[in-house]
Amino acid sequence: VKVALIGYGNVGKAFAKLLYSRRNAYPFRIVAIHTARHGTACASKGLPLTPEFAAAADSIDQFLEVSRPDVAIEITPLNPEDGEPAIGHIKTAIKHGIHVITANKGPIAHAYAELRELARRAQVEFRFESTVMDGAPVFNMVRHCLPGIQIMGFTGCLNSTSKLVVEAMSRGFTLEEGVKEAQAQGVAEADASFDIDGWDSAAKTAALANVFMDAHATPAMVEREGIRKFTTEQVMDLAREGKTVALMSRGERAGEKVILHVKPEILAVTDLLATTRGTSNVLLLHTDLMGTVGTVSIEPGVEQTAYGLFSDLVDIAKSV
Amino acid sequence: VKVALIGYGNVGKAFAKLLYSRRNAYPFRIVAIHTARHGTACASKGLPLTPEFAAAADSIDQFLEVSRPDVAIEITPLNPEDGEPAIGHIKTAIKHGIHVITANKGPIAHAYAELRELARRAQVEFRFESTVMDGAPVFNMVRHCLPGIQIMGFTGCLNSTSKLVVEAMSRGFTLEEGVKEAQAQGVAEADASFDIDGWDSAAKTAALANVFMDAHATPAMVEREGIRKFTTEQVMDLAREGKTVALMSRGERAGEKVILHVKPEILAVTDLLATTRGTSNVLLLHTDLMGTVGTVSIEPGVEQTAYGLFSDLVDIAKSV
Repeated sequence: VKVALIGYGNVGKAFAKLLYSRRNAYPFRIVAIHTARHGTACASKGLPLTPEFAAAADSIDQFLEVSRPDVAIEITPLNPEDGEPAIGHIKTAIKHGIHVITANKGPIAHAYAELRELARRAQVEFRFESTVMDGAPVFNMVRHCLPGIQIMGFTGCLNSTSKLVVEAMSRGFTLEEGVKEAQAQGVAEADASFDIDGWDSAAKTAALANVFMDAHATPAMVEREGIRKFTTEQVMDLAREGKTVALMSRGERAGEKVILHVKPEILAVTDLLATTRGTSNVLLLHTDLMGTVGTVSIEPGVEQTAYGLFSDLVDIAKSV
Repeated sequence: VKVALIGYGNVGKAFAKLLYSRRNAYPFRIVAIHTARHGTACASKGLPLTPEFAAAADSIDQFLEVSRPDVAIEITPLNPEDGEPAIGHIKTAIKHGIHVITANKGPIAHAYAELRELARRAQVEFRFESTVMDGAPVFNMVRHCLPGIQIMGFTGCLNSTSKLVVEAMSRGFTLEEGVKEAQAQGVAEADASFDIDGWDSAAKTAALANVFMDAHATPAMVEREGIRKFTTEQVMDLAREGKTVALMSRGERAGEKVILHVKPEILAVTDLLATTRGTSNVLLLHTDLMGTVGTVSIEPGVEQTAYGLFSDLVDIAKSV
């Protein structure tokens, strides 16, 4: 199976290492890598872990035309506001009749129904396990392990930065100090407002709702409230009462509609949904036949995001 | 797909209802039911939800010979000490070239490697999703969603009765009173020592280790300690310190060996592993490539156990 990577940051490098370490059991070959910054690398027999980049291809169209992979993996830096350029890359790959895997939640949060439909018509697979919870089985769990089920709703505190910030505030720091701590840990971006104001959670909420509830949502359609209104004193008072603040993502069906919101909730510190710290996560799915089930992921990192891509790739290789 | 049930208690009835409710989407037909108590019912066109039982077949052998199902579902009452008669039933079905699903953890805890090998040679499927965590994706999650992974260990507080007992003790009741409460809730058996002394947890531990770590274990090989040594006072003291007792199942690799134990652990009440109450469960899998991931199930009941059988059945129907 010939694989082309669009983007080659930390996740891409971890993915290339993972493929290399499993090359005897899984005959996947990275034949081309395209990056905006370093240029393009191609080798139909497979690229080394540290490829030499030549001049960039003129376009993704040209890149895929030349490299002719079976599967394209879209892992460019996320533009969360509109899901581009990832959406464009994915459409181009589908147009070429190439299966696509992405770790970018933007396309799922902004354009899932359209991409699913394009892929269906082109008879290619479109997969995205790593877009929520960094590669832990979420979408593939529902796809493979929960047949015939209807998902009535979901609940999860899915934003790492806000969790670290609340933790810092419960120890007496300000929100700004908490943000700096999260940035120092490499969890928060330079502009943390995307996390603090709930946009990251809204993107994840829209993505989950689009896939599991056919919601045709975008992040802007999620009722959204961040954690800025809480003072350090309030968070410390809550902590003394055995409570905490969690920026919760929720989706639920209401008749034909799907209601989505992201907002801070006051939870007991013993609540399952409040117990995962930092990048750890719990996502609960509320179903008709299987009650409430969920996935837990403890302190995932880029290796786990890379593994999610790998699990999608194995799945595609099996079904082709 | 023609299905025969061996056993028809609460899980069997819930399963029959589930199949009936999904009969348009999934063409599964229960053609025969065998019970030790009520006798045998057969109808090649499919049995009604309240079948009329005639005289019992002489043996499972004869029952399967006459009913000729594609899939046999083994859901007789569990004899946890040796896994019989379920193991015998499963062997008989495999011998007839029939796929088998069981909700009985006994066969997986006592004889997994042998049954897996028999099924492999007979080229039939052998599935058991409902044996741990009542139908939530555990075995099928690893099978379908975690390709190429090695499971290095697992952790979970998987016994409901002991959780209810510890909760009652933290409120000032004795262990015996806690057991009565668990019995009143329908969670504990008449003889609760199986739960309190860790045998139920040991069976689940052996089952997980056999499937995930090829451990060739039995419940007796699990290092086992129950919760009897704790007094109400101790549990109340722990609760005042924000701690609790959890009867934990753990498996880990140590070189070529697999070390298995069940013992009470003192956890913070904010520990993820301490937050699921009653029949709710968290199971964490420690893996090489995907770090620590897990499954959560909130207050599952017989409907969820029945769903686990259904998910196995759909899987078998797909692969055949």
